[in-house]
Amino acid sequence: MKYDWLLYYYISLLSKVKYLIMLGITSPTLVINEAIARKNIKRMVNKANQAGVEFRPHFKTHQSKFISELFKQQGVTSITVSSIQMAKYFIEHGWLDVTIAFPFNILEIDLLNSLSVKAKINILVVDGDVVKLLDNKLDNKVYAYIELDADYGRSGIPITNIERIQSLKMNIDLATNIEFAGFYTHAGHTYKCRDAGQVRTLAKNIIQQLSELYKLYKSPICFGDTPSCSVLDSFGSVSQISPGNFVFYDWMQHKIGACEESDIAVALFCPVVAKYGDRNELLIHGGAVHLSKEYLVRENGDYYFGVVADKKDNGWGVSLPGNYVKSISQEHGIISCTDDFFESVEVGDLLPILPIHSCLTADLMGSYLSLEGNRIDHLSSQLK
Amino acid sequence: MKYDWLLYYYISLLSKVKYLIMLGITSPTLVINEAIARKNIKRMVNKANQAGVEFRPHFKTHQSKFISELFKQQGVTSITVSSIQMAKYFIEHGWLDVTIAFPFNILEIDLLNSLSVKAKINILVVDGDVVKLLDNKLDNKVYAYIELDADYGRSGIPITNIERIQSLKMNIDLATNIEFAGFYTHAGHTYKCRDAGQVRTLAKNIIQQLSELYKLYKSPICFGDTPSCSVLDSFGSVSQISPGNFVFYDWMQHKIGACEESDIAVALFCPVVAKYGDRNELLIHGGAVHLSKEYLVRENGDYYFGVVADKKDNGWGVSLPGNYVKSISQEHGIISCTDDFFESVEVGDLLPILPIHSCLTADLMGSYLSLEGNRIDHLSSQLK
Repeated sequence: MKYDWLLYYYISLLSKVKYLIMLGITSPTLVINEAIARKNIKRMVNKANQAGVEFRPHFKTHQSKFISELFKQQGVTSITVSSIQMAKYFIEHGWLDVTIAFPFNILEIDLLNSLSVKAKINILVVDGDVVKLLDNKLDNKVYAYIELDADYGRSGIPITNIERIQSLKMNIDLATNIEFAGFYTHAGHTYKCRDAGQVRTLAKNIIQQLSELYKLYKSPICFGDTPSCSVLDSFGSVSQISPGNFVFYDWMQHKIGACEESDIAVALFCPVVAKYGDRNELLIHGGAVHLSKEYLVRENGDYYFGVVADKKDNGWGVSLPGNYVKSISQEHGIISCTDDFFESVEVGDLLPILPIHSCLTADLMGSYLSLEGNRIDHLSSQLK
Repeated sequence: MKYDWLLYYYISLLSKVKYLIMLGITSPTLVINEAIARKNIKRMVNKANQAGVEFRPHFKTHQSKFISELFKQQGVTSITVSSIQMAKYFIEHGWLDVTIAFPFNILEIDLLNSLSVKAKINILVVDGDVVKLLDNKLDNKVYAYIELDADYGRSGIPITNIERIQSLKMNIDLATNIEFAGFYTHAGHTYKCRDAGQVRTLAKNIIQQLSELYKLYKSPICFGDTPSCSVLDSFGSVSQISPGNFVFYDWMQHKIGACEESDIAVALFCPVVAKYGDRNELLIHGGAVHLSKEYLVRENGDYYFGVVADKKDNGWGVSLPGNYVKSISQEHGIISCTDDFFESVEVGDLLPILPIHSCLTADLMGSYLSLEGNRIDHLSSQLK
């Protein structure tokens, strides 16, 4: 990297402009509090152990070999990813049991064949013709989950369509190189919930439906978005969980009721570039190419794209109510401020912004900076 | 790159699944039609010449050394960028007159000093204190535009606040290492217009206000978002234009009335991974980490995140009405289809998606593939 990430504090007395340069940051930088991430991982590992389910965490949130080590240290051995490129990245780092949680893209058969020599690969399937085609092209055995749609409407066979499930299961059973792994479902609609109670009701309803399926097939069932896994303590007939976002959480998860503010493990540190006193707004360097355009809606109907947290000497603290990213363009972010906060900030300050959706922010930033000043890898910096 | 980008077509007869693998694409890939980009550049160069204004195109859309060469070939010598990292990238490629169109971030003074030895750097300023501080820290002369806010509400001194403009101008005049470059304004609110007439009215109104300022200062005025520059033929007292998006355009610009569909120079090619006949929808590999979460709103109030274009043997054609990206998550995209189109598509096909906002899609993808099969660079692959 071009910067010198030594931990230093440099306070200039030359002008009224305050220089508090944390960790040498001069441009938008995604900072990770490793201790919080470790705590988040440990909590979910413990929950899986206590509930007696296999923990197959989704790595699409962090996409980092370094952070994957934090999972390994907690005894995790099997993982979930969202693309074959991500599978390759983690297999090269020594992960040997990987689910690619996306209906398999038949154009990527050559890469699949090269990876299935090295690791146990689990894919998702939704189409009998694809199963037949794949079976012809596979060099090595792979394992296939039938993806079920629990009324989220994105991908998978509707959970209640036993006829199609049975037909697809027969295709898998007839295949030579594909072994049935069970059922996989992602309840992405929990993200529309606005408190833990709503999440619990929705997740329990889905688990009830999955239990009916379990009675028929007695096969492993993998389930588990972050909101569901955060609010539930038991999982019925579900035998595997694969949440991902919980490693960092973010403001959206907090608003869903899946985490406390203090569980959020990443913040985007952004330089304050200008103050606009006539509208109590700050201009930061930090825009759509850093935070993403993910937003939430305030009570008054306005959108917001991130939340300002209290800067601490070594990291950040709680959010500062009334201070948020009110608009965003490619590189610009506009912070709407309370009077007091506006007065307290100076050009050249760094503001920690809690992202709405940490997966997208991490993917855009392509690396992390730890509070100890270490650069941490992210797959997206290698794919481009 | 890991792929073999030879131009080949491979039609499998082994199954009903059609393999038409254009350019060896197997995963989401941003394809550029260079001929269209060249035409877009030429049109804007001609317009600037005919209007007698200096052309200082914004390079934040393409962020590519290769594409910058297409501008050089048309006689362009001065450019605009949106971050100092982008300035560095283009200066290293030989661009010697660069405007960083963002109020200068004082934390980046060291990098500015290292770049201003090599090139003429123009910065934006909005704050007299920052001007004084900068002047103390600068090793070499830089040029400063006063950024004006023409009621967009993002950044700059309100265009009508002559008192603040005058005060800032005095700070610049008093500085030793900063020379006044003129005024700069970005009318980002043209993006809210929904036809060329609205853009024209808004842009003419701003130019009228800028003309009043010109009467006072007789200084260069730089203006020019893509919608304004696309629909106007003359620019009044404006002496420099700096549009950026026009090099590629996108679906948003088309809806604003700034371009024809046939002017859109990039499309994201996405594999079709599953068909859902019960809801006439396709699942593609192509999500928020490829297209971005930028959206537009359909007449019925639904959001959409991209538009399906007709695939041609060598590229793509017009959009296919009624076929669009209706929802998006990290890696998944769902295409809502007409009956006929749904029937015509098979798993394994590649669909060209016209992005809503090409700047964000290009930044996420981090490289381009030309129709001739060449990989083309993008800065974002180097920054992470």
